[in-house]
Amino acid sequence: MVKLDRIQRPELILDEAKVRRNIEAMAQKAEKCGVRFRPHFKTHQSREIGRWFREVGVTAITVSSLTMARYFADDGWDDVTVAFPVNLREMAAIDDLASRIRLHLLAVHPETVEALERDLRHPVGLFIKVDCGYHRTGVLPEDTATWERFVEVLQGSRQVAFRGILTHAGHSYKARGADEIVAVHRQALKAMARAKEVLASLYPDLQVSVGDTPSCSVAEDFPGVDEIRPGAFVFYDLMQHRIGACAMEDVAMVAACPVVARHPQRRELVLYGGAVHLSKDGVEGPDGAPVYGWVSAWGEDGWELPTGCCRVIALSQEHGIVRVCPEHWDRFRVGDLAAVTPVHCCLTANLLGAYRTLDGRVITRL
Amino acid sequence: MVKLDRIQRPELILDEAKVRRNIEAMAQKAEKCGVRFRPHFKTHQSREIGRWFREVGVTAITVSSLTMARYFADDGWDDVTVAFPVNLREMAAIDDLASRIRLHLLAVHPETVEALERDLRHPVGLFIKVDCGYHRTGVLPEDTATWERFVEVLQGSRQVAFRGILTHAGHSYKARGADEIVAVHRQALKAMARAKEVLASLYPDLQVSVGDTPSCSVAEDFPGVDEIRPGAFVFYDLMQHRIGACAMEDVAMVAACPVVARHPQRRELVLYGGAVHLSKDGVEGPDGAPVYGWVSAWGEDGWELPTGCCRVIALSQEHGIVRVCPEHWDRFRVGDLAAVTPVHCCLTANLLGAYRTLDGRVITRL
Repeated sequence: MVKLDRIQRPELILDEAKVRRNIEAMAQKAEKCGVRFRPHFKTHQSREIGRWFREVGVTAITVSSLTMARYFADDGWDDVTVAFPVNLREMAAIDDLASRIRLHLLAVHPETVEALERDLRHPVGLFIKVDCGYHRTGVLPEDTATWERFVEVLQGSRQVAFRGILTHAGHSYKARGADEIVAVHRQALKAMARAKEVLASLYPDLQVSVGDTPSCSVAEDFPGVDEIRPGAFVFYDLMQHRIGACAMEDVAMVAACPVVARHPQRRELVLYGGAVHLSKDGVEGPDGAPVYGWVSAWGEDGWELPTGCCRVIALSQEHGIVRVCPEHWDRFRVGDLAAVTPVHCCLTANLLGAYRTLDGRVITRL
Repeated sequence: MVKLDRIQRPELILDEAKVRRNIEAMAQKAEKCGVRFRPHFKTHQSREIGRWFREVGVTAITVSSLTMARYFADDGWDDVTVAFPVNLREMAAIDDLASRIRLHLLAVHPETVEALERDLRHPVGLFIKVDCGYHRTGVLPEDTATWERFVEVLQGSRQVAFRGILTHAGHSYKARGADEIVAVHRQALKAMARAKEVLASLYPDLQVSVGDTPSCSVAEDFPGVDEIRPGAFVFYDLMQHRIGACAMEDVAMVAACPVVARHPQRRELVLYGGAVHLSKDGVEGPDGAPVYGWVSAWGEDGWELPTGCCRVIALSQEHGIVRVCPEHWDRFRVGDLAAVTPVHCCLTANLLGAYRTLDGRVITRL
């Protein structure tokens, strides 16, 4: 049982067994589906948790900033993809890291390749970002002019070795239920196949990389895919549960927040746990208003499974307001800890900055 | 002119002259209105910026956590109010700090006073939080039973010295324009007068403390008030501008974010600057969808004043998507820095963790 009495301020609590189970399940799925597992480490950003991936055979990772790439390179990861469009202002840092590890970068514009060629003294691998329908960024499969420009600049490149195409089907976050997730997944694979067609004759070894957590959690086959890069599955969260990517039992992390006030007439708790701890990412609640987390009490072996009857309904900088159902009202006294299942584990973990396992061990992160 | 070429990753840029002007203006208003100025330091959380307040005569401050209180106490601030309901789990830290400075705490429940009496060895001042209509937390002026219980426990107290009543009219954030702000302000002062009435015969020296940035920025008189505690006015932001609490010229802080991709067909930029840099606090945009910041280019002397024609319309962990108006499209190239005026300066400053002044000096924060 977690040493709850030691917790004074909002803290992240990890169920290590669940984290390891999530990692193993995804590694097994990748193996079964014949795809490389290159997990995204932006969610946990922790060297120690990274080592749990090594234990199941992972040797290559994904990150979303050079800062993260360096942090993990310093812990022995030597095959790292930065799955974020190259930031030209970090060229010196890119070159330095490229001298130490197999570094793979992401380009949206052919001009990026030219800039890398001009400024780097060390070799990098390159993926081109494909817009598979999410429309955040990337090259559309049908954008022939851009693909031709890419081929042109890549043909003459010395430092930049073209590796393949990469996408993030982030519109799977709007899906609800397995069928809708799989539909997004299929559409993404179709877009990738079309983009691959443009390049396959010139680059027969071209790699296809995909990887949002909903698709990787739910889809059972990945035709035409060489690697998957899911990240949030390591902890899962309320958003993933809402999408249908996980069961509430799979969520491996909560924020433990002290109860500092109680308002019985409106059945609301005030938590020490606000926007600077949980983040203002919300999901839609039953009345259409945003919900910033589900709240539960603590049992003998950790937090109880939240059922959604106690919800964080408002956040200011340090305050979290929880609306509690009648049946649970007596479970929370002033001075108790509440367990908040976060909406978006990546953002909450980023804000709280370290983890404590159920047996009280502290795990640091970047 | 800011040394923009040194900025590689998302960073906060401060216009020190504007910050100092905001501080001076609020100090002058407090003096003119005959109220003590006890600024809230949760917004900047910086010892150096704290010293700028000392230069205009400020000697007493407000914070929202014990961690902040300790940070500023270590820089010589010896009169500190923690304007957040007492967290019973931090009793040892409270007692330690109470041994070093004049520490004032906030209670919502009479039981808090009993707990402090039982566990503290050093004296603290106490404010009772009044709910003046915001309904986040606090005692309603008409809640006679609770006021009577407070009087009861305070009468016998040794370590806890009752100082007065405190409120935060946070519903001023829903106001639009000076008239609505002043209406909230008046209503709050009425609630405080009513709460004071209950206690005034027993506590003739009772202090009345108020302090949201919109009311303190706009209201011209504070009848019955002894001190004001605004915080966000130090930087101001898009939310304050939207409310009508400041002019865009008063906003003293932006996030400088590298442009990493451009999508001309939908006139969108991709910024290195996402939810982990800007926060997901939004204001309603012209089409009803949330906006996470206004974007402008850089001129000779700093960022240009944003007009709202370029807006951050979506945020993922590290990506910010900006919709740009036709007239400004050519101002932003890949590799440039964009200036994002944040929606909520407190949250963005918390995420970015340090400041850089326009002349390139780095200012640390907690």
